[in-house]
Amino acid sequence: MVTEISSLQNNRIKELSKLSKRRVRDARRMTLVEGARESLRCLDQGVTPIEVYLCPALLTDEEGRVAAARLEVLAQTHRTRLFHVTEEVFARIAYRESGGLLLVIPYGETGLAHLPAPAVPLYAVIEGVEKPGNLGAILRTADAAGVDGLIVSQTRARPATDLYNPNVVRASLGALFTVPVAEASTAAVIDWLAERQIPLIAATPDGTVRYTDAALVGPVAVALGSEAFGLSEELLAAAQQRVVIPMFGVMDSLNLATSAALLMYEAVRQRGDRE
Amino acid sequence: MVTEISSLQNNRIKELSKLSKRRVRDARRMTLVEGARESLRCLDQGVTPIEVYLCPALLTDEEGRVAAARLEVLAQTHRTRLFHVTEEVFARIAYRESGGLLLVIPYGETGLAHLPAPAVPLYAVIEGVEKPGNLGAILRTADAAGVDGLIVSQTRARPATDLYNPNVVRASLGALFTVPVAEASTAAVIDWLAERQIPLIAATPDGTVRYTDAALVGPVAVALGSEAFGLSEELLAAAQQRVVIPMFGVMDSLNLATSAALLMYEAVRQRGDRE
Repeated sequence: MVTEISSLQNNRIKELSKLSKRRVRDARRMTLVEGARESLRCLDQGVTPIEVYLCPALLTDEEGRVAAARLEVLAQTHRTRLFHVTEEVFARIAYRESGGLLLVIPYGETGLAHLPAPAVPLYAVIEGVEKPGNLGAILRTADAAGVDGLIVSQTRARPATDLYNPNVVRASLGALFTVPVAEASTAAVIDWLAERQIPLIAATPDGTVRYTDAALVGPVAVALGSEAFGLSEELLAAAQQRVVIPMFGVMDSLNLATSAALLMYEAVRQRGDRE
Repeated sequence: MVTEISSLQNNRIKELSKLSKRRVRDARRMTLVEGARESLRCLDQGVTPIEVYLCPALLTDEEGRVAAARLEVLAQTHRTRLFHVTEEVFARIAYRESGGLLLVIPYGETGLAHLPAPAVPLYAVIEGVEKPGNLGAILRTADAAGVDGLIVSQTRARPATDLYNPNVVRASLGALFTVPVAEASTAAVIDWLAERQIPLIAATPDGTVRYTDAALVGPVAVALGSEAFGLSEELLAAAQQRVVIPMFGVMDSLNLATSAALLMYEAVRQRGDRE
């Protein structure tokens, strides 16, 4: 039996909106996923939502109906709690217009120890990323490039976007669930890579070697810094090599997600076929 | 002497808002530029605005004040018409929150004949792009990669974003003014390249050669299609080679701007130093 929620005063609805705050998400270790495609990716990757909020009137596309059907089955077998909500209630809890589906999911594992450790790993380290849209786009590219881990690092100096920010989930179109991810302090990332003897290649405007001339065929972690501030001194000092993406124009910088794509795909190019 | 506008009923203010429609922009051959950095790029590239709407109370950053000072000089010498507006009026005409500066500028030249024609040109053709944000991002990368021309093409079948969409100007951070650009039908682009014996390399998921294995060192135009539909049959049929960007993940596609960046920078890599 499905519970119907039609009141904006419903306690669950009030609690739900608190998840827009990182502090609350981190304390509860839960975040929000909205949208049909994202919900399907989530289910496909074996993530079982804790709660599902579904607005039948807004489920207009095929993907949405497929996702809803799968979620109803999970609810019937008591693996998730499913609520039907009115359009008015959905408008309150949704963070974008489309959809009709909102999931509450548990945080996944984001420890460094959890990352795959193949013989010749390719990791990407993104330090202090500020814009959720950039981190989401980087996740999409990391999925396509097949990196073994996307590591989001943070220095104490500045706050950064977290992986489980709902806007990251959204911008990633669900790639957050398909890419091995980790979150750690920059110091912890440096130690972890050093212990494993994985060279760290830092991309910076001051780099002396073009990124296409750096050796990316062996075990390697490529690192990029925040949109406004670049990489920290700490990370730059720990890098075995500093590389630059050449620029020939009038503007001063490439978009962070674009730079990350160029680095990850340069590693793909150098490594050749991997089938 | 500066004219002050404080009424939302002012005829200029009403006319200005009509420029959000492509039909009106194309008929008047004018568009809107907002923001300090974008205004500076525009002036630096020799574009003189037809009208300037300035809200002194909102000019809070250094770049904004510099841009405003330069615009005031242009107005004093009668090369542009400058209006001071109230915050209420600015809120009506602005399409984003920041700024305090809104320019009306004339369309630039976008004919194919206008593009630079070096001995070994690198052009990028983007067909049927739908999202202004993607086209803006592609312009930023085209600036950095130093392409000789970014050609936005369109088939009759589908509408696409135009270069002078204010959201393209904004997302490009002003790169629209630094990159040689052209707009033409796909048929016209194919003819133009053929006449100049410039090979057309089409990126498509059905490509048989990796983009990194295609020869991009000679004269070349690399082409990418729309987010949803890819390249038209017409363009694919005209291409000398179809290339693919390999993907190893779960997701079905890379972002269009990311794909464009990979192609443009692969050409940069193959061409080596150009200083």
